[in-house]
Amino acid sequence: MTRRFIIKEIHQQKLKDQKAVIKGWVKSVRTAKWGAFIVVNDGSCQRDIQCVADKDIEGFEETVAKLSIGCSIALTGNLVESQGRVKAIEMQVESCELIGGVSEDYPLQKKATSLEFLREVAHLRSRTNTFGAVFRVRHALAFATHKFFNDRGFYYLNTPIITSSDAEGAGDMFRVSTLKKGESDYSKDYFGQETFLCVSGQLEGETFAQGMGAIYTFGPTFRSENSNTARHLAEFWMIEPEVAFFDLEDNAQLASDYLKYLISYAMENCLEELEFLQQMYKKDLIETLNHVKDSPFEKITYTEAVEILNNSGKKFEYQATWGSDLQTEHERFLAEEHFNKPVIVTDYPKDIKAFYMKLNEDGKTVRAMDVLVPGVGEIIGGSQREDDYEKLLSRMKEMDLKEEDYWWYLELRKFGSVPHSGFGLGFERAVMYITGMSNIRDVIAYPRYPNNAKF
Amino acid sequence: MTRRFIIKEIHQQKLKDQKAVIKGWVKSVRTAKWGAFIVVNDGSCQRDIQCVADKDIEGFEETVAKLSIGCSIALTGNLVESQGRVKAIEMQVESCELIGGVSEDYPLQKKATSLEFLREVAHLRSRTNTFGAVFRVRHALAFATHKFFNDRGFYYLNTPIITSSDAEGAGDMFRVSTLKKGESDYSKDYFGQETFLCVSGQLEGETFAQGMGAIYTFGPTFRSENSNTARHLAEFWMIEPEVAFFDLEDNAQLASDYLKYLISYAMENCLEELEFLQQMYKKDLIETLNHVKDSPFEKITYTEAVEILNNSGKKFEYQATWGSDLQTEHERFLAEEHFNKPVIVTDYPKDIKAFYMKLNEDGKTVRAMDVLVPGVGEIIGGSQREDDYEKLLSRMKEMDLKEEDYWWYLELRKFGSVPHSGFGLGFERAVMYITGMSNIRDVIAYPRYPNNAKF
Repeated sequence: MTRRFIIKEIHQQKLKDQKAVIKGWVKSVRTAKWGAFIVVNDGSCQRDIQCVADKDIEGFEETVAKLSIGCSIALTGNLVESQGRVKAIEMQVESCELIGGVSEDYPLQKKATSLEFLREVAHLRSRTNTFGAVFRVRHALAFATHKFFNDRGFYYLNTPIITSSDAEGAGDMFRVSTLKKGESDYSKDYFGQETFLCVSGQLEGETFAQGMGAIYTFGPTFRSENSNTARHLAEFWMIEPEVAFFDLEDNAQLASDYLKYLISYAMENCLEELEFLQQMYKKDLIETLNHVKDSPFEKITYTEAVEILNNSGKKFEYQATWGSDLQTEHERFLAEEHFNKPVIVTDYPKDIKAFYMKLNEDGKTVRAMDVLVPGVGEIIGGSQREDDYEKLLSRMKEMDLKEEDYWWYLELRKFGSVPHSGFGLGFERAVMYITGMSNIRDVIAYPRYPNNAKF
Repeated sequence: MTRRFIIKEIHQQKLKDQKAVIKGWVKSVRTAKWGAFIVVNDGSCQRDIQCVADKDIEGFEETVAKLSIGCSIALTGNLVESQGRVKAIEMQVESCELIGGVSEDYPLQKKATSLEFLREVAHLRSRTNTFGAVFRVRHALAFATHKFFNDRGFYYLNTPIITSSDAEGAGDMFRVSTLKKGESDYSKDYFGQETFLCVSGQLEGETFAQGMGAIYTFGPTFRSENSNTARHLAEFWMIEPEVAFFDLEDNAQLASDYLKYLISYAMENCLEELEFLQQMYKKDLIETLNHVKDSPFEKITYTEAVEILNNSGKKFEYQATWGSDLQTEHERFLAEEHFNKPVIVTDYPKDIKAFYMKLNEDGKTVRAMDVLVPGVGEIIGGSQREDDYEKLLSRMKEMDLKEEDYWWYLELRKFGSVPHSGFGLGFERAVMYITGMSNIRDVIAYPRYPNNAKF
């Protein structure tokens, strides 16, 4: 039996003068007097393969002549180098088998379809060039994440999805329950108490960093805020490293190394995808990525950032004032106009940051860091964590958090406490940034947002 | 400044005659007239490092003499080869800094603590030898999973966690909601309809396999059944590959290759962990794993399995009868006693399997497969999927599933349908199997089960 090759193997290894079977879906078919060109893709790579079928081959009229876009087929034939200027591998078809036909209402026809329309047929969109590219890059970035941390001795940790604690102390959580309509006694619920979907795995991550040294999570997180924007999802994936004996400097270095690694890995493994996305969606994509990969990240304090904004002469919708959070317009000005590269902003006022961040000696700021990138704004948020029991407890009291809800988190500061730091990267934000896609709903398989949980 | 080395680097590279800083937690401390032995671990590997502090070093009385188990410390000194028979690397300490002390109520004292007790302090248990080993093996198995599939051209897919569809058509789902107490109009809920936590990513996985060829998921899945056993969790992680143009044979081969790869990878990367676990929990662990790695998996049909069981002369609590599901006692007899290796059972009666499995020509059985392993029972369940529109629809009607809930799943069979197959591996079951741990609550960071969502 002739061996099946996937199209990626054929192109990468330039397999020629070799008999092969190709299985995939018809991207286009063009018939002529002498026979037909059938362009096939099997999802393994960006590049299709052109298959040339002479009209004399067996069963031409019954199969090839009836093919349409989207049909699944198996072709047997010889792989040869094409005659044209570009020496691509193509197939001289000897036989064609139709595996699955396509009914007339197939929504992916030759004419270009909008990204909005494709969201309505998300179960089919991975068959298009755009989404094939996006999801192969997404895969590469996920694999690069595991490789980066594994190579550096970090251990992958699965923190709980269903949780009884609120990691951010900020609300906006989805409730998880098995109670029936009308029941509301949570002591009779599945877990015997109120439970929610996690907003972060950080607090649990810290517990394991203090046993295993360096851990990272990579799992789904959830926010129930009513945000209907191109940058928010109710369900998104986050990567959260957490490292014992790490201070804010170490943390910033790790964040910068990681982002650069992601870009390098995508460039090395998905160049055809990135070139396609550049051509279709963002003319300077590869140049921008190269620039970020090769530039040292800028590092400034929040206080310096506010000064830069106020001295910029630029009119913002909101003026930057010390003590208020930076707006997206501020973040983008810093990363895009002022520095034109990623910027790490550190040492924010304590009142606009979470309770677990380490207090600086000034008593006013905390050892927080946000990484801002051109085009997206904040992509990473992190901090050195408060490792002093009394300081953490007093901060929790200031913020009306209940000590008993966080007893185990507090205990880490009683039993061999260490300086430690970590950050969170929103995975979809990173995928957007590296693919150049402008809507976050186009970089996750089945996006969840207000009034949408389809598929 | 002297460089800090993690203990794994020191042992793996046998770093000696080198000045170094070690940071970690005190595992034990033994004082004598001449000074003290301090045993330190930093979570990076199973092996501790012994550090020898002469009482003449600076600050001995203030720090070393006061150390207790669990303190975090930084030691500076020279790495040297020890004098004993086992030439391990140890440190000749020059200075010792106490980073974080330990209050008296520290629950992890020298005396052995039970696994049950450690579940109550799950935030600290990764500091113990047992859980350090388990979670490093778990990490290795996760990384091996990504490497196995990436190397074979599979793309990682994140299927949705919050879903409006029931992949198994079997109930037992957790509701996700933002409605307040007493409200029950789901059209006003966050997603505008009833939503649940996914029980599987398979159906969505199939949609992407028909675009990208071969995908795999690795994410959390949920079951709200009231199972309080050592083998069930309400929240667990699952790996689900799904491949276009794959039949049941291909699928069984993939499952067998994958399980063997997991074992080989753990043996190559975590031998010290496995040796520790063998010594503590399962005397034949490594021999068993080697046996599974090197044996071809047995393959029998369900019908043959029932015959074997009925001819075995063994008394079972439930007799095996054709048409009923195999009981755990049956599965274990087949894998442990009859074959003494993993067994793949195929072609189950359609009535005990899910609606999406491909009907065999006999009209009675489906192209299902379960992989049974000694000690655990079922570890993988999979099938070739029904790729014929009419057959799938009629099976759904037989099982009272609503066509409109699965419109997108059905459409895959209208637009270039292909034979395709996949399976699901319960990740925690695999971790149990390979670590030899006997309770599933001991192989996940924070287990979720009835009446427990602590931490």
